[in-house]
Amino acid sequence: MTKQVQTAISPTRNEDYPGWYQQVIKASDLAERSSVRGCMVIKPWGYALWENIMHAMDNLFKATGVKNAYFPLFIPLSFFEKEAEHVEGFAKECAVVTHHRLEKGKSGGLEPAGPLAEPLVVRPTSETIIGDSFSRWVSSYRDLPILINQWANVVRWEMRTRMFLRTSEFLWQEGHTVHATAEEALERTRMMLDVYTTCVEDYLAMPVFRGRKSPAERFPGAVDTLSIETMMQDRKALQSGTSHFLGQNFARASEIKFQSAAETEEYAWTTSWGSSTRMIGGIIMTHGDDDGIILPPKVASAHVVLLPIFRKSEDRGIGDGFY
Amino acid sequence: MTKQVQTAISPTRNEDYPGWYQQVIKASDLAERSSVRGCMVIKPWGYALWENIMHAMDNLFKATGVKNAYFPLFIPLSFFEKEAEHVEGFAKECAVVTHHRLEKGKSGGLEPAGPLAEPLVVRPTSETIIGDSFSRWVSSYRDLPILINQWANVVRWEMRTRMFLRTSEFLWQEGHTVHATAEEALERTRMMLDVYTTCVEDYLAMPVFRGRKSPAERFPGAVDTLSIETMMQDRKALQSGTSHFLGQNFARASEIKFQSAAETEEYAWTTSWGSSTRMIGGIIMTHGDDDGIILPPKVASAHVVLLPIFRKSEDRGIGDGFY
Repeated sequence: MTKQVQTAISPTRNEDYPGWYQQVIKASDLAERSSVRGCMVIKPWGYALWENIMHAMDNLFKATGVKNAYFPLFIPLSFFEKEAEHVEGFAKECAVVTHHRLEKGKSGGLEPAGPLAEPLVVRPTSETIIGDSFSRWVSSYRDLPILINQWANVVRWEMRTRMFLRTSEFLWQEGHTVHATAEEALERTRMMLDVYTTCVEDYLAMPVFRGRKSPAERFPGAVDTLSIETMMQDRKALQSGTSHFLGQNFARASEIKFQSAAETEEYAWTTSWGSSTRMIGGIIMTHGDDDGIILPPKVASAHVVLLPIFRKSEDRGIGDGFY
Repeated sequence: MTKQVQTAISPTRNEDYPGWYQQVIKASDLAERSSVRGCMVIKPWGYALWENIMHAMDNLFKATGVKNAYFPLFIPLSFFEKEAEHVEGFAKECAVVTHHRLEKGKSGGLEPAGPLAEPLVVRPTSETIIGDSFSRWVSSYRDLPILINQWANVVRWEMRTRMFLRTSEFLWQEGHTVHATAEEALERTRMMLDVYTTCVEDYLAMPVFRGRKSPAERFPGAVDTLSIETMMQDRKALQSGTSHFLGQNFARASEIKFQSAAETEEYAWTTSWGSSTRMIGGIIMTHGDDDGIILPPKVASAHVVLLPIFRKSEDRGIGDGFY
C-alpha cells in the first residue's frame, strides 16, 4: 500500500475560499469535527500552535502587571440577568445546566435527574461571575487597580460553525480589570488593544486594522468596544481581539464599590478584553496558499520537517539504521 | 486605620485540622468559595502555584513523548452510556446540559428554552469522548502508540466540598494513550505513576506511597488502578495522582480497532492517568504549620516577601521616595 503525497489543496483559494480553508485544516491535521454538535477537537499540531500563542500572549499580559486566576465555569441564572443588555446579547446562545444527576428512566436508558433549584449557564464570557468576586475584593481605592486574566473554555451555542472561526465551545483568554477612574479604565482598554496588536503583528505576522466597533457591534453591556481586525486573503476582515470599556455598567450590576480617597463610596470602572483560538483560523487565512498551511516562525511548533521521498518502494530498505 | 498582622493560624493543627486547613487557604489568599455551589475561585496566588505545577508536569509528560490536545467539554449521553461500569460510577455526580437558549417565561424572568434532542454531560473525565476521536485516528498498528494529554476543567457534582481537595469543578490534566498490546499499555500505566512520583517528590517535596487500588476503589471501567498516596500531617493519605490500565474495555466501548502486523483486526489497549488542583491541598497539608502556609521552593511563585514593619504610624513617612 502506498500513500499519495498531497502537493496542493483542492479546491484552490480562487475556486472556493471557505472550501480551501476546511481542506487546509484537514491536510495540516490541526483539528477535526467532533461528534458533539458545533464542537471541535484540537489535534496535537493545532494545540501546539495554541500553546505557543498562549505563551507569547501571557508574557505580554504579565509585563503590564496582569495576573492569572480561575473562576467558575457555571454562572447562576440570576447573576447572568443582572446586566440587561448583557443577558439580552447572550440569551439566545447559552448552554444551560438544569440537572445534576442521571437516573434510569422508564425506557431503561438514563435520563437527567436531580433538578437544580436555579439553572446554571455555562459561561459564554465571565463578566458577571468575576464581578461577583470583584465585589468582595474591592473595598477601598487602595485595592485598585485589579488586573486579572483567565485562560479558559467558553460556550456560545452557534447554529453555523466553522472550525477555529466559530464553534460552540472555544478556548480563549478573558481579561478583567477594575479601576478607580474612567480615565484609568480607558487607558487600560487602549493598552490591551496595543498588546493584541503587538502579539498579532509581531508573533503571528498578520496585518492589523485597529478601530472602534459600531454601537450595533459592541459587546453586550459595554460602553465602548475597540477591536483589531485582521485582513484575510479573501478581502474580508476577521475580528481577532476585542477590548471593552465597560463604564460602570457591570460595577453597578455586581455592586463593585469602593471608598475613594475623599471617603465617598463610588462604583468602580471596569474593562474586559478577549482573544481566542479563532486567531489560528486567521493565521491560516493570512499565510496559507494553494499548497497548504504556512506558519509564522515565532509560533510554529516545528521549523523544519524532512520528508523522505522514495522513487521505488524497494528504496525504503536503503540506509536502514540511519532513517 | 491600621491592620493587625496575623502571626498564627487559629485554630491550630492540633485543635482542629480541617479548620486550620481552611484558615491557611484564607490567610495565604490562595482561593475562595464562589457563589456557585461547590465551585471555588482560584485567586492569583493559588493560580500561580498551579501554573508552576503545570509547567513542571507538562515538561515531564513531553519528555515521554506525550503531546497535548483538546477535546469537547460536552459528552453526548449515548457516548457516556457505552461503558457500563463507567457510567454507573459517574451517573450520580453529572452536570447535565438540557437546553441551549434562555427565553422570557410567564413570570417575566428567563427560563431554559430550546431543549436538546440528546442531553449533554459536562465531562467528569473524557475517556468516552476522546475514545470517539481515537476510533478515527487508529486504523493500523503503525498508528500506535497514541500518547495524548489534555489540560482541562472537569465537573463532578459533589455534595460535600473542601477547597482544592473536593470541589464540583476542578482543573486537572488527563492523559489518554492507545497501544497495540497489553504489555505496552501496562508499561505506560506504570511509567506515568513514575512521572507523578517524580513530580510530587522532586517538585512538591511530598512523601509518596505508591500502590494499587482495591477493586472497590478502582476507576469505573478500569482493569487496574495505580495511585500515589501522599502522607498528610494528620496521618491520613491523600490520593494525589492515579494511573489506570483500562484493558480493552474502553476500546470495545468506543470501537478503537486496528489492523495488526499479522493483518488481523484487534481491539486496542488503552490507559488513562490524571492529577489535579487537589495537589495544592496536599502541599498545604504536608508543609504548612501553625504560622501558615509553607511552599516548596521549586513551585513557589515568590521566594522572598519583604514585610516593612513600622512601630508608629508617623514612621511611614520616613524614607518617602524609597519605600
